[in-house]
Amino acid sequence: MNLLENIRTTLLMGPGPSCVHPLTYYALGRPTLGHLDPYFITIMDEIKADLQTVMGTKNVATIPISGTGSAGMETSFVNMIEPGDRVLVLINGVFGMRMADVAGRLGAEVDTIEFEWGTAVDPEEVEKKLKEKSYDIVAVVHAETSTGVCNPVEEISKILADTDSLYLVDTVTSLCGMPVEMDKWGIDICYSGSQKCISCPPGIAPVSFSDRAMEKLNNRKTKVPNWYLDVSMIAQYWGGKTRAYHHTAPINMLYALYQSLKLIIEEGLENVYKRHMECHKMLVAGIEELGFKMLVKEGYRLPMLNAVLVPDSIDEAELRKRLLNEYNIEVGAGLGALAGKIVRIGLMGHTARDYNVKRLLDALSAIIK
Amino acid sequence: MNLLENIRTTLLMGPGPSCVHPLTYYALGRPTLGHLDPYFITIMDEIKADLQTVMGTKNVATIPISGTGSAGMETSFVNMIEPGDRVLVLINGVFGMRMADVAGRLGAEVDTIEFEWGTAVDPEEVEKKLKEKSYDIVAVVHAETSTGVCNPVEEISKILADTDSLYLVDTVTSLCGMPVEMDKWGIDICYSGSQKCISCPPGIAPVSFSDRAMEKLNNRKTKVPNWYLDVSMIAQYWGGKTRAYHHTAPINMLYALYQSLKLIIEEGLENVYKRHMECHKMLVAGIEELGFKMLVKEGYRLPMLNAVLVPDSIDEAELRKRLLNEYNIEVGAGLGALAGKIVRIGLMGHTARDYNVKRLLDALSAIIK
Repeated sequence: MNLLENIRTTLLMGPGPSCVHPLTYYALGRPTLGHLDPYFITIMDEIKADLQTVMGTKNVATIPISGTGSAGMETSFVNMIEPGDRVLVLINGVFGMRMADVAGRLGAEVDTIEFEWGTAVDPEEVEKKLKEKSYDIVAVVHAETSTGVCNPVEEISKILADTDSLYLVDTVTSLCGMPVEMDKWGIDICYSGSQKCISCPPGIAPVSFSDRAMEKLNNRKTKVPNWYLDVSMIAQYWGGKTRAYHHTAPINMLYALYQSLKLIIEEGLENVYKRHMECHKMLVAGIEELGFKMLVKEGYRLPMLNAVLVPDSIDEAELRKRLLNEYNIEVGAGLGALAGKIVRIGLMGHTARDYNVKRLLDALSAIIK
Repeated sequence: MNLLENIRTTLLMGPGPSCVHPLTYYALGRPTLGHLDPYFITIMDEIKADLQTVMGTKNVATIPISGTGSAGMETSFVNMIEPGDRVLVLINGVFGMRMADVAGRLGAEVDTIEFEWGTAVDPEEVEKKLKEKSYDIVAVVHAETSTGVCNPVEEISKILADTDSLYLVDTVTSLCGMPVEMDKWGIDICYSGSQKCISCPPGIAPVSFSDRAMEKLNNRKTKVPNWYLDVSMIAQYWGGKTRAYHHTAPINMLYALYQSLKLIIEEGLENVYKRHMECHKMLVAGIEELGFKMLVKEGYRLPMLNAVLVPDSIDEAELRKRLLNEYNIEVGAGLGALAGKIVRIGLMGHTARDYNVKRLLDALSAIIK
């Protein structure tokens, strides 16, 4: 029996992957080209330009990395960090913790400021810390996928403007679901993932490095301790005159990224953000009407990732199981300290449609009545 | 204009990617599931079992890594090496050189033995070196894609049997095109890529670690300096009881890998190897009849990667360009010292069909006549 024949089309309302548009599925199956084929290189150039558009940057080093979102995190840190570099990580969830782990493994001197899960990073605490000590890199997650909190990335950038620190921001979940303005916000290093609001299957991680970040990379005393993710070499393939072969690019996944980005740009970024916000509002209204409460205070909530508190009277694991088995709807479990206490409802990319929100609310209503 | 609409179906006869079977394209476009969906986990289990079959191993830690073949190389070294580990790399081409670079970046004490490009690694030299000095890891490329040479992996394994060295073998190009017997040959760490003889698009790197290798990993004094490729964590997602989330797996690429492996196993590994060998013989006979010579001596040639010397009277770049533009056939250029001197003709996976060989020979004949 071929298991692929019996895959059920699932409404993906978890923390990613999100639903994939039919044209993106179609793109995946276009004929594979060689990674040095001149026609493929024209596709690469379009992808780079479209990534610059959605990331709000003119950075030349704007590249889709051949791995999933976590490979984007790894790429960002491994290229920037030399042993002993001082890194400040602002933590209010799993992905901030992961950043600190990644940086520590690379020999950085890591300091952290921790904030309660479900609340946002407080810029005043950051300002205080930066008066005490200087850092090579300050890192924060824009959209903390584990809690549904939006961190004040733009506000923090204003504090950093007076320092020499490079600003590293995780936009895995935010990119293409809400504004991300790399250049305007002075972000030096930014990474994302394909499977959230870009609505492409997982497997590609867009990254972008400012000129200041590339200068740090080019002035390293030691080689990047990761051949596969060495951006100084990858950038030669993606942009150099010679298009020097580094590794074989994931051709068909890049077709899918190409198509996903085109769909977003054709719809218009502002319209895409609006669609996410409207679905979010519809979800919150509906879910509160059903008696659930949101984990995060209004004003700090992400539109595309909604952390919903599950009352003690409802078995959270059973709820998710019934949604999946009876309604073909996937929502996400809580992570870490929030496991068993919340479900995470994703409204990302192609998933963020009013009819999907309605389908989920109807299913929840039927289950809990 | 959507560039994806105008992709020409190209006969991929370079060093990878190779041609993709229609069922594998179909697999790519199956509905995306969540990476923790129980149904997806059944697909993962089948992939693991099928990888064990084609790699000739019972290793539990047999996993498709979320990256291209080079990510497999990176994974193999970064998990095994701690700073100061003694690594011996046997080099007779680009990919042996890359191994030494990767290992060096990770702080290994790297020794190399170099052999002339186009000739095979000489086991006697290896034996001599191992009498002088002991190594934690001895690394070699099975099928050196840059030259078309097959290295005597099994012979070297006999020398290593008397030592404590772990044996690390690159099977990126060989796997599923000729026998690879990890357990029988005492290979401890093995990696490959999806886009060669597995005939899946690029983006996945099968790796396998023996119990001895996993013991070295589990006894590390330092964390693996690469969060994304840390096999001790990835193995929990691929095989642990809890299926703990590590990173979002590249779902649709894994569908394609599933389908590609099923096609190979249904045909039968012996039949697949035979098909590769027959196409190779047909190619060599035809190409010699056209007046070309092979770079590698008979007996050391790979079936799936044929390095063909281009006489001075023919412009090698022009030849490749005409094959691509006029005949939709891609062949590979020479790398490094062999650039401009050879073309590399791949007969990998679904490409290895007699009608494809005939199509190439006809095209070459028309161009050079």
